[in-house]
Amino acid sequence: MSSSLLEQLIEAFRVLPGVGQKSAQRMAYHVLERERAGGQRLSEALAVAVEKIGHCVRCRDFSETEVCATCASAAREAHLLCIVESPADRLAIEQATGYRGLYYVLQGRLSPLDGVGPRELGLDRLAQRLAEGEVQELIIATNPTVEGEATAHYLAQLARQHGVRPSRLAHGVPLGGELEYVDRGTLSHAFGSRGEMPE
Amino acid sequence: MSSSLLEQLIEAFRVLPGVGQKSAQRMAYHVLERERAGGQRLSEALAVAVEKIGHCVRCRDFSETEVCATCASAAREAHLLCIVESPADRLAIEQATGYRGLYYVLQGRLSPLDGVGPRELGLDRLAQRLAEGEVQELIIATNPTVEGEATAHYLAQLARQHGVRPSRLAHGVPLGGELEYVDRGTLSHAFGSRGEMPE
Repeated sequence: MSSSLLEQLIEAFRVLPGVGQKSAQRMAYHVLERERAGGQRLSEALAVAVEKIGHCVRCRDFSETEVCATCASAAREAHLLCIVESPADRLAIEQATGYRGLYYVLQGRLSPLDGVGPRELGLDRLAQRLAEGEVQELIIATNPTVEGEATAHYLAQLARQHGVRPSRLAHGVPLGGELEYVDRGTLSHAFGSRGEMPE
Repeated sequence: MSSSLLEQLIEAFRVLPGVGQKSAQRMAYHVLERERAGGQRLSEALAVAVEKIGHCVRCRDFSETEVCATCASAAREAHLLCIVESPADRLAIEQATGYRGLYYVLQGRLSPLDGVGPRELGLDRLAQRLAEGEVQELIIATNPTVEGEATAHYLAQLARQHGVRPSRLAHGVPLGGELEYVDRGTLSHAFGSRGEMPE
Protein backbone atom coordinates (compact mmCIF):
# COMPACT_ATOMS: atom_id res chain seq x y z
CA MET A 1 0.00 0.00 0.00
CA SER A 2 1.52 3.32 -1.03
CA SER A 3 1.31 6.00 1.65
CA SER A 4 -0.67 9.19 1.20
CA LEU A 5 0.93 12.60 0.63
CA LEU A 6 0.06 13.49 4.22
CA GLU A 7 1.81 10.38 5.56
CA GLN A 8 4.81 11.14 3.36
CA LEU A 9 4.95 14.68 4.74
CA ILE A 10 4.75 13.44 8.35
CA GLU A 11 7.52 10.93 7.64
CA ALA A 12 9.64 13.63 6.00
CA PHE A 13 9.40 15.92 9.05
CA ARG A 14 11.00 13.19 11.15
CA VAL A 15 14.46 13.92 9.71
CA LEU A 16 14.49 17.06 11.88
CA PRO A 17 16.30 16.75 15.22
CA GLY A 18 14.05 16.04 18.21
CA VAL A 19 10.99 15.48 16.05
CA GLY A 20 9.15 12.20 16.64
CA GLN A 21 5.88 10.87 15.26
CA LYS A 22 3.64 13.17 17.34
CA SER A 23 5.56 16.39 16.64
CA ALA A 24 5.78 15.50 12.96
CA GLN A 25 1.99 15.06 12.83
CA ARG A 26 1.52 18.36 14.60
CA MET A 27 3.86 20.13 12.17
CA ALA A 28 2.16 18.66 9.11
CA TYR A 29 -1.33 19.58 10.34
CA HIS A 30 -0.20 23.03 11.39
CA VAL A 31 1.28 23.78 7.97
CA LEU A 32 -1.76 22.44 6.12
CA GLU A 33 -4.31 24.15 8.37
CA ARG A 34 -2.71 27.50 8.93
CA GLU A 35 0.62 28.00 7.20
CA ARG A 36 0.46 26.90 3.57
CA ALA A 37 2.37 29.99 2.43
CA GLY A 38 4.97 29.43 5.16
CA GLY A 39 5.22 25.76 4.18
CA GLN A 40 5.84 26.81 0.59
CA ARG A 41 8.58 29.20 1.72
CA LEU A 42 10.17 26.52 3.90
CA SER A 43 10.12 24.09 0.98
CA GLU A 44 11.91 26.59 -1.24
CA ALA A 45 14.42 27.68 1.42
CA LEU A 46 15.30 24.03 2.09
CA ALA A 47 15.77 23.17 -1.58
CA VAL A 48 18.00 26.19 -2.22
CA ALA A 49 20.00 25.75 1.01
CA VAL A 50 20.65 22.05 0.47
CA GLU A 51 21.82 22.74 -3.06
CA LYS A 52 23.75 25.99 -2.64
CA ILE A 53 25.28 26.00 0.84
CA GLY A 54 28.75 24.46 0.84
CA HIS A 55 31.83 25.04 2.95
CA CYS A 56 34.15 28.04 3.01
CA VAL A 57 37.57 26.96 1.67
CA ARG A 58 39.32 29.04 4.36
CA CYS A 59 37.45 28.15 7.56
CA ARG A 60 35.23 25.17 6.59
CA ASP A 61 32.14 26.94 7.99
CA PHE A 62 28.92 26.82 5.96
CA SER A 63 29.01 29.34 3.15
CA GLU A 64 27.19 29.96 -0.09
CA THR A 65 30.31 31.54 -1.55
CA GLU A 66 33.78 30.01 -1.95
CA VAL A 67 35.15 32.18 0.85
CA CYS A 68 32.67 33.11 3.59
CA ALA A 69 31.87 36.73 4.51
CA THR A 70 33.86 36.54 7.76
CA CYS A 71 37.02 35.19 6.13
CA ALA A 72 36.70 37.72 3.30
CA SER A 73 36.20 40.67 5.66
CA ALA A 74 39.09 43.11 5.98
CA ALA A 75 37.68 44.26 9.34
CA ARG A 76 38.50 41.01 11.17
CA GLU A 77 41.81 40.59 13.00
CA ALA A 78 43.74 37.93 11.08
CA HIS A 79 46.24 37.26 13.90
CA LEU A 80 43.52 35.64 16.05
CA LEU A 81 42.12 32.26 15.00
CA CYS A 82 39.35 30.62 17.05
CA ILE A 83 38.87 26.93 16.44
CA VAL A 84 35.47 25.31 17.10
CA GLU A 85 33.87 21.92 16.49
CA SER A 86 30.73 22.98 14.65
CA PRO A 87 29.10 25.92 12.83
CA ALA A 88 26.62 26.17 15.73
CA ASP A 89 29.51 26.69 18.18
CA ARG A 90 30.93 29.38 15.91
CA LEU A 91 27.54 31.14 15.84
CA ALA A 92 27.22 30.92 19.64
CA ILE A 93 30.62 32.59 20.13
CA GLU A 94 29.91 35.21 17.49
CA GLN A 95 26.58 36.09 19.14
CA ALA A 96 27.82 36.05 22.75
CA THR A 97 31.20 37.71 22.54
CA GLY A 98 32.78 40.75 20.93
CA TYR A 99 35.40 38.57 19.20
CA ARG A 100 36.69 40.19 16.01
CA GLY A 101 39.19 37.56 14.85
CA LEU A 102 38.73 34.67 12.42
CA TYR A 103 37.38 31.16 12.90
CA TYR A 104 38.24 27.64 11.89
CA VAL A 105 35.44 25.05 12.00
CA LEU A 106 36.57 21.44 12.46
CA GLN A 107 33.17 19.97 11.54
CA GLY A 108 33.82 17.28 14.14
CA ARG A 109 36.37 16.27 16.76
CA LEU A 110 39.21 13.74 16.91
CA SER A 111 37.66 10.33 17.50
CA PRO A 112 39.99 7.52 16.40
CA LEU A 113 37.43 4.81 17.21
CA ASP A 114 35.02 6.37 14.70
CA GLY A 115 37.79 6.76 12.15
CA VAL A 116 37.99 10.54 12.58
CA GLY A 117 41.65 11.51 12.56
CA PRO A 118 43.56 14.75 11.83
CA ARG A 119 43.07 14.28 8.07
CA GLU A 120 39.24 14.09 8.34
CA LEU A 121 39.20 17.37 10.28
CA GLY A 122 41.38 19.10 7.68
CA LEU A 123 44.18 19.65 10.19
CA ASP A 124 46.79 19.44 7.42
CA ARG A 125 45.27 22.59 5.93
CA LEU A 126 45.16 24.19 9.38
CA ALA A 127 48.86 23.35 9.91
CA GLN A 128 49.67 24.98 6.57
CA ARG A 129 47.78 28.09 7.63
CA LEU A 130 49.60 28.25 10.97
CA ALA A 131 52.91 27.86 9.08
CA GLU A 132 52.12 30.96 7.01
CA GLY A 133 52.90 33.01 10.10
CA GLU A 134 49.94 35.41 10.15
CA VAL A 135 48.18 33.72 13.08
CA GLN A 136 49.69 34.62 16.48
CA GLU A 137 47.11 33.09 18.86
CA LEU A 138 45.03 29.93 18.37
CA ILE A 139 41.95 30.13 20.61
CA ILE A 140 40.88 26.53 21.12
CA ALA A 141 37.12 26.40 21.77
CA THR A 142 36.37 22.70 21.34
CA ASN A 143 33.73 21.32 23.71
CA PRO A 144 34.75 20.42 27.28
CA THR A 145 34.10 16.71 26.66
CA VAL A 146 36.62 13.87 26.65
CA GLU A 147 37.00 13.97 22.87
CA GLY A 148 36.93 17.77 22.79
CA GLU A 149 39.74 17.92 25.36
CA ALA A 150 41.80 15.36 23.45
CA THR A 151 41.31 17.42 20.30
CA ALA A 152 42.32 20.55 22.21
CA HIS A 153 45.58 18.94 23.35
CA TYR A 154 46.39 17.85 19.82
CA LEU A 155 45.66 21.34 18.50
CA ALA A 156 47.78 22.99 21.20
CA GLN A 157 50.76 20.82 20.19
CA LEU A 158 50.19 21.67 16.54
CA ALA A 159 50.12 25.39 17.39
CA ARG A 160 53.34 25.24 19.41
CA GLN A 161 55.11 23.39 16.56
CA HIS A 162 54.42 26.42 14.38
CA GLY A 163 55.32 29.01 17.00
CA VAL A 164 51.67 29.98 17.58
CA ARG A 165 50.42 30.60 21.14
CA PRO A 166 47.51 28.25 21.99
CA SER A 167 44.80 29.36 24.44
CA ARG A 168 41.71 27.61 25.81
CA LEU A 169 38.35 28.94 27.01
CA ALA A 170 38.25 29.22 30.81
CA HIS A 171 36.49 26.45 32.71
CA GLY A 172 34.63 27.22 35.92
CA VAL A 173 31.33 27.84 37.62
CA PRO A 174 28.71 29.13 35.12
CA LEU A 175 27.32 32.60 35.79
CA GLY A 176 23.97 32.56 37.58
CA GLY A 177 24.42 28.95 38.68
CA GLU A 178 24.25 27.74 42.28
CA LEU A 179 27.32 25.97 43.65
CA GLU A 180 25.08 23.26 45.11
CA TYR A 181 24.05 22.16 41.63
CA VAL A 182 27.40 22.46 39.82
CA ASP A 183 28.89 19.06 38.94
CA ARG A 184 31.93 17.87 40.92
CA GLY A 185 34.44 18.01 38.06
CA THR A 186 33.58 21.62 37.27
CA LEU A 187 33.58 22.66 40.92
CA SER A 188 36.91 20.98 41.56
CA HIS A 189 38.40 22.68 38.50
CA ALA A 190 36.96 26.08 39.45
CA PHE A 191 38.32 25.72 43.00
CA GLY A 192 41.78 24.74 41.78
CA SER A 193 41.87 27.57 39.22
CA ARG A 194 40.68 30.27 41.64
CA GLY A 195 42.07 33.73 40.96
CA GLU A 196 42.66 36.77 43.11
CA MET A 197 39.61 39.01 43.52
CA PRO A 198 39.97 42.25 41.58
CA GLU A 199 39.68 45.30 43.89
CA MET B 1 21.40 44.02 4.07
CA SER B 2 19.92 40.94 2.44
CA SER B 3 20.06 37.84 4.61
CA SER B 4 22.08 34.76 3.67
CA LEU B 5 20.52 31.50 2.52
CA LEU B 6 21.27 30.02 5.93
CA GLU B 7 19.47 32.88 7.70
CA GLN B 8 16.54 32.51 5.30
CA LEU B 9 16.36 28.78 6.08
CA ILE B 10 16.43 29.42 9.85
CA GLU B 11 13.70 32.02 9.48
CA ALA B 12 11.61 29.64 7.35
CA PHE B 13 11.77 26.88 10.00
CA ARG B 14 10.09 29.23 12.47
CA VAL B 15 6.68 28.74 10.82
CA LEU B 16 6.60 25.30 12.45
CA PRO B 17 4.68 25.06 15.74
CA GLY B 18 6.83 25.26 18.87
CA VAL B 19 9.95 26.18 16.92
CA GLY B 20 11.76 29.30 18.10
CA GLN B 21 15.07 30.82 17.05
CA LYS B 22 17.25 28.21 18.80
CA SER B 23 15.37 25.16 17.52
CA ALA B 24 15.26 26.63 14.02
CA GLN B 25 19.05 27.08 14.09
CA ARG B 26 19.47 23.53 15.31
CA MET B 27 17.23 22.19 12.55
CA ALA B 28 19.01 24.14 9.83
CA TYR B 29 22.47 23.02 11.01
CA HIS B 30 21.31 19.42 11.45
CA VAL B 31 19.93 19.27 7.91
CA LEU B 32 23.05 20.89 6.39
CA GLU B 33 25.51 18.80 8.39
CA ARG B 34 23.90 15.40 8.37
CA GLU B 35 20.63 15.21 6.47
CA ARG B 36 20.91 16.90 3.09
CA ALA B 37 19.04 14.05 1.39
CA GLY B 38 16.35 14.16 4.09
CA GLY B 39 16.11 17.94 3.70
CA GLN B 40 15.64 17.51 -0.02
CA ARG B 41 12.85 14.96 0.60
CA LEU B 42 11.19 17.27 3.14
CA SER B 43 11.34 20.14 0.66
CA GLU B 44 9.62 18.05 -2.00
CA ALA B 45 7.04 16.54 0.37
CA LEU B 46 6.13 20.03 1.59
CA ALA B 47 5.79 21.48 -1.89
CA VAL B 48 3.59 18.62 -3.08
CA ALA B 49 1.48 18.51 0.11
CA VAL B 50 0.82 22.26 0.16
CA GLU B 51 -0.23 22.17 -3.48
CA LYS B 52 -2.14 18.89 -3.66
CA ILE B 53 -3.80 18.30 -0.28
CA GLY B 54 -7.27 19.81 -0.14
CA HIS B 55 -10.42 18.89 1.74
CA CYS B 56 -12.72 15.89 1.25
CA VAL B 57 -16.10 17.16 0.01
CA ARG B 58 -17.90 14.67 2.28
CA CYS B 59 -16.13 15.02 5.63
CA ARG B 60 -13.92 18.14 5.22
CA ASP B 61 -10.86 16.18 6.40
CA PHE B 62 -7.57 16.63 4.52
CA SER B 63 -7.55 14.62 1.33
CA GLU B 64 -5.62 14.56 -1.90
CA THR B 65 -8.69 13.20 -3.70
CA GLU B 66 -12.16 14.77 -3.96
CA VAL B 67 -13.60 12.15 -1.59
CA CYS B 68 -11.18 10.80 1.05
CA ALA B 69 -10.36 7.10 1.40
CA THR B 70 -12.45 6.72 4.57
CA CYS B 71 -15.59 8.30 3.07
CA ALA B 72 -15.15 6.28 -0.11
CA SER B 73 -14.70 2.98 1.76
CA ALA B 74 -17.59 0.48 1.60
CA ALA B 75 -16.24 -1.19 4.75
CA ARG B 76 -17.13 1.73 7.07
CA GLU B 77 -20.51 1.83 8.83
CA ALA B 78 -22.40 4.75 7.32
CA HIS B 79 -25.00 4.95 10.11
CA LEU B 80 -22.36 6.21 12.58
CA LEU B 81 -20.97 9.73 12.15
CA CYS B 82 -18.29 11.01 14.52
CA ILE B 83 -17.82 14.77 14.55
CA VAL B 84 -14.48 16.28 15.55
CA GLU B 85 -12.91 19.72 15.55
CA SER B 86 -9.69 18.99 13.66
CA PRO B 87 -7.98 16.40 11.45
CA ALA B 88 -5.58 15.68 14.34
CA ASP B 89 -8.55 14.76 16.59
CA ARG B 90 -9.86 12.45 13.88
CA LEU B 91 -6.47 10.76 13.62
CA ALA B 92 -6.25 10.37 17.42
CA ILE B 93 -9.65 8.61 17.53
CA GLU B 94 -8.83 6.45 14.52
CA GLN B 95 -5.55 5.34 16.12
CA ALA B 96 -6.89 4.79 19.65
CA THR B 97 -10.27 3.16 19.07
CA GLY B 98 -11.75 0.42 16.93
CA TYR B 99 -14.34 2.85 15.49
CA ARG B 100 -15.50 1.76 12.05
CA GLY B 101 -17.99 4.52 11.24
CA LEU B 102 -17.49 7.77 9.32
CA TYR B 103 -16.18 11.18 10.41
CA TYR B 104 -17.05 14.81 9.94
CA VAL B 105 -14.29 17.36 10.55
CA LEU B 106 -15.48 20.84 11.57
CA GLN B 107 -12.06 22.47 11.01
CA GLY B 108 -12.83 24.68 14.00
CA ARG B 109 -15.47 25.27 16.67
CA LEU B 110 -18.32 27.72 17.13
CA SER B 111 -16.82 30.99 18.31
CA PRO B 112 -19.15 33.92 17.61
CA LEU B 113 -16.64 36.48 18.94
CA ASP B 114 -14.13 35.37 16.29
CA GLY B 115 -16.81 35.37 13.60
CA VAL B 116 -16.99 31.58 13.42
CA GLY B 117 -20.66 30.59 13.09
CA PRO B 118 -22.49 27.51 11.78
CA ARG B 119 -21.88 28.58 8.18
CA GLU B 120 -18.08 28.76 8.60
CA LEU B 121 -18.06 25.20 9.98
CA GLY B 122 -20.12 23.89 7.06
CA LEU B 123 -23.01 22.94 9.37
CA ASP B 124 -25.54 23.60 6.57
CA ARG B 125 -23.95 20.73 4.65
CA LEU B 126 -23.92 18.58 7.79
CA ALA B 127 -27.66 19.31 8.32
CA GLN B 128 -28.32 18.25 4.74
CA ARG B 129 -26.45 15.02 5.34
CA LEU B 130 -28.36 14.29 8.55
CA ALA B 131 -31.62 14.97 6.65
CA GLU B 132 -30.74 12.25 4.12
CA GLY B 133 -31.59 9.71 6.83
CA GLU B 134 -28.62 7.36 6.59
CA VAL B 135 -26.97 8.55 9.80
CA GLN B 136 -28.55 7.13 12.99
CA GLU B 137 -26.07 8.26 15.65
CA LEU B 138 -24.02 11.46 15.74
CA ILE B 139 -21.00 10.92 18.03
CA ILE B 140 -19.98 14.40 19.14
CA ALA B 141 -16.25 14.43 19.92
CA THR B 142 -15.53 18.16 20.14
CA ASN B 143 -12.98 19.15 22.77
CA PRO B 144 -14.12 19.45 26.41
CA THR B 145 -13.48 23.21 26.40
CA VAL B 146 -16.04 26.00 26.79
CA GLU B 147 -16.29 26.53 23.03
CA GLY B 148 -16.18 22.79 22.32
CA GLU B 149 -19.08 22.21 24.76
CA ALA B 150 -21.12 25.02 23.21
CA THR B 151 -20.50 23.53 19.78
CA ALA B 152 -21.54 20.11 21.14
CA HIS B 153 -24.85 21.50 22.40
CA TYR B 154 -25.56 23.14 19.06
CA LEU B 155 -24.76 19.90 17.22
CA ALA B 156 -26.95 17.83 19.56
CA GLN B 157 -29.91 20.12 18.82
CA LEU B 158 -29.23 19.87 15.10
CA ALA B 159 -29.13 16.07 15.33
CA ARG B 160 -32.43 15.87 17.24
CA GLN B 161 -34.12 18.14 14.67
CA HIS B 162 -33.31 15.50 12.05
CA GLY B 163 -34.26 12.52 14.20
CA VAL B 164 -30.63 11.51 14.74
CA ARG B 165 -29.49 10.34 18.21
CA PRO B 166 -26.62 12.52 19.52
CA SER B 167 -23.99 11.04 21.84
CA ARG B 168 -20.96 12.54 23.57
CA LEU B 169 -17.62 11.06 24.65
CA ALA B 170 -17.63 10.17 28.36
CA HIS B 171 -15.98 12.60 30.74
CA GLY B 172 -14.20 11.34 33.83
CA VAL B 173 -10.94 10.48 35.50
CA PRO B 174 -8.22 9.63 32.93
CA LEU B 175 -6.81 6.10 33.10
CA GLY B 176 -3.53 5.88 34.98
CA GLY B 177 -4.06 9.27 36.61
CA GLU B 178 -4.03 9.89 40.34
CA LEU B 179 -7.18 11.40 41.89
CA GLU B 180 -5.02 13.83 43.84
CA TYR B 181 -3.89 15.48 40.63
CA VAL B 182 -7.17 15.45 38.69
CA ASP B 183 -8.67 18.93 38.29
CA ARG B 184 -11.79 19.76 40.32
CA GLY B 185 -14.20 20.05 37.40
CA THR B 186 -13.27 16.62 36.06
CA LEU B 187 -13.38 15.01 39.50
CA SER B 188 -16.77 16.53 40.29
CA HIS B 189 -18.13 15.34 36.94
CA ALA B 190 -16.68 11.84 37.38
CA PHE B 191 -18.15 11.62 40.90
CA GLY B 192 -21.58 12.72 39.73
CA SER B 193 -21.55 10.35 36.76
CA ARG B 194 -20.41 7.32 38.78
CA GLY B 195 -21.70 4.00 37.51
CA GLU B 196 -22.35 0.65 39.13
CA MET B 197 -19.27 -1.61 39.32
CA PRO B 198 -19.48 -4.48 36.84
CA GLU B 199 -19.24 -7.86 38.67
